[in-house]
Amino acid sequence: MIKGYACKEKGGQLKSFEYDPGALGPDEVEVEVEFCGICHSDLAMIDNDWGMSSYPFIPGHEAVGKIVAVGDQVSQDRVGQRVGVGWQSASCNHCKKCGVGKESLCLNGSEVAETIVGRNGAWAEKVRSQAKWAIPIPETLDPSLAGPLMCAGTTVWSPIRHHGVRPGMETAVLGVGGLGHLAVQFLAKMGTQVTGLSTTRSKEEGTRELGATNFIATKESPEDLEKAAGRFDVIVSTVSADVDWNAYIQTLSPEGTLILCGVPGGAVEFMPFPLIGTEKKIAGGRAGAPADTQAMLEFCATHDIAPMCEQFAMEDINKAVQHVRDGKARYRAVVAA
Amino acid sequence: MIKGYACKEKGGQLKSFEYDPGALGPDEVEVEVEFCGICHSDLAMIDNDWGMSSYPFIPGHEAVGKIVAVGDQVSQDRVGQRVGVGWQSASCNHCKKCGVGKESLCLNGSEVAETIVGRNGAWAEKVRSQAKWAIPIPETLDPSLAGPLMCAGTTVWSPIRHHGVRPGMETAVLGVGGLGHLAVQFLAKMGTQVTGLSTTRSKEEGTRELGATNFIATKESPEDLEKAAGRFDVIVSTVSADVDWNAYIQTLSPEGTLILCGVPGGAVEFMPFPLIGTEKKIAGGRAGAPADTQAMLEFCATHDIAPMCEQFAMEDINKAVQHVRDGKARYRAVVAA
Repeated sequence: MIKGYACKEKGGQLKSFEYDPGALGPDEVEVEVEFCGICHSDLAMIDNDWGMSSYPFIPGHEAVGKIVAVGDQVSQDRVGQRVGVGWQSASCNHCKKCGVGKESLCLNGSEVAETIVGRNGAWAEKVRSQAKWAIPIPETLDPSLAGPLMCAGTTVWSPIRHHGVRPGMETAVLGVGGLGHLAVQFLAKMGTQVTGLSTTRSKEEGTRELGATNFIATKESPEDLEKAAGRFDVIVSTVSADVDWNAYIQTLSPEGTLILCGVPGGAVEFMPFPLIGTEKKIAGGRAGAPADTQAMLEFCATHDIAPMCEQFAMEDINKAVQHVRDGKARYRAVVAA
Repeated sequence: MIKGYACKEKGGQLKSFEYDPGALGPDEVEVEVEFCGICHSDLAMIDNDWGMSSYPFIPGHEAVGKIVAVGDQVSQDRVGQRVGVGWQSASCNHCKKCGVGKESLCLNGSEVAETIVGRNGAWAEKVRSQAKWAIPIPETLDPSLAGPLMCAGTTVWSPIRHHGVRPGMETAVLGVGGLGHLAVQFLAKMGTQVTGLSTTRSKEEGTRELGATNFIATKESPEDLEKAAGRFDVIVSTVSADVDWNAYIQTLSPEGTLILCGVPGGAVEFMPFPLIGTEKKIAGGRAGAPADTQAMLEFCATHDIAPMCEQFAMEDINKAVQHVRDGKARYRAVVAA
């Protein structure tokens, strides 16, 4: 039996819960959870915002811990290895996307597992995943901070890598929260000149400390956004708000790319001529495949990058969740087992 | 003096006109026009749809002809060379876009010339351009058909090349008119499997003759569009209509790209989750730089590609323009000097 904290009804509090995980699959590992982040997707699943929650379930999909058991097909050498487990925890591994290292876009939906969809996640003693999706955590990375890299981190890292960010570029991060504060660090350490874009100046100092050299308060000083016309080679959007996309497309340089990582609630609307006339792009980006996430963890270890986390004890999970719901987490909350 | 057919007022008929072009610039060439296409942009300029027409002016920006005079800085060897002149006819050639062969995105607007904006185009005896923008026409290309390649052709060719179309891909062309009938040929000869997307079946046979292996009548058989979910690696949109973009994004494969070449009149609106969840892109594309257009002309010569043109005598320019206005051109109209 595995003990954890489950949500038993839409929007409910987390309560003690235990479940029988059954036999460990031949390609699976079981991870003893040390730390786990709290992501907005956990809240969305608790609230059934996406209509795909089945109760009771244990949330938590930014796990760090040590492998304590492995399936028949997995090397015994992995027992004791510290790993991270994120949103996705299995893929078919034989379709044409899996075959080119894009298991995050696996075409066989029935063989894909999402850690907290129809199964139990990591606000628990243990969590399971396909061995491939349990990503080794470099030894020099602080395990108490690594959790949020497994979802927030890879969600911005992978699109940044796939959409051609190169050193020397001018980049911007729209929204400096859980995802954005990691995007700023990645882009700064990749050798780009980073501008933080946030509604007010309240996050300016923090954003500069993370490596941004410029900051625009988009609501307080909209004239600064206008002055940035044609400036950014890449904008990484982490916002879920519906903003004036034309104003941001305007700030892209010719051939620039607006990467949508956050999912706005409504339709995205833009006037086509500016996009066409200067060959701009709007690209969707999502959490990466195992190789992407592995590369990110190594980049973080090499370049001393970590999320800024507020830590709670796992038994205080409801307090931690409320802190995130209240928008108070700077920038991410983590629970410790 | 150069004689031609000018439009003297908004929406007016073309009338005989002559103008003094002044001294030939040191980096310019003068081209004796043999043939010139009629493009929808000519009509938009005649009608001042974009608010940038100044009357009187001679339209025409899909010119083919022979160089008859060169400026001081241009090699005398070019006299007698057959060239094409398109929408753009000068760039600064020293900004960072020009420096990497993207003169079509030249950053110094004041040094950019557009053939029929504030100057006279090619429905005339002669037309001028910067030497760099007078692109040599391969000898094996029929000059009476090459004109539309200089605008319609390069407008689809360049985005197709820049956005990663590769042999073996599944591609689609939305709208099979002047631009689309060239996009179908390019994509077929690039080794992709092409689907034509048009509202009715009226263009199916013609589209298949151009190299498409599939055809979907989007209004007559919307169920076929639904069945194409996840199928196209690239869609080249040539339409200026406001369509249901979500329906087309749905037909893109994961990581697929919707390339907008035609300029829709209204805002483009799409739901972000499908784009983000499967890493799709929407990219704007426009007519290419000289090197792009040169590569296209050589590709056409090698692969026996040409626009299908209806030819008129230049003195019948008003009849030809009306034919295009009536939507009767299959697929492009050209006037012969």
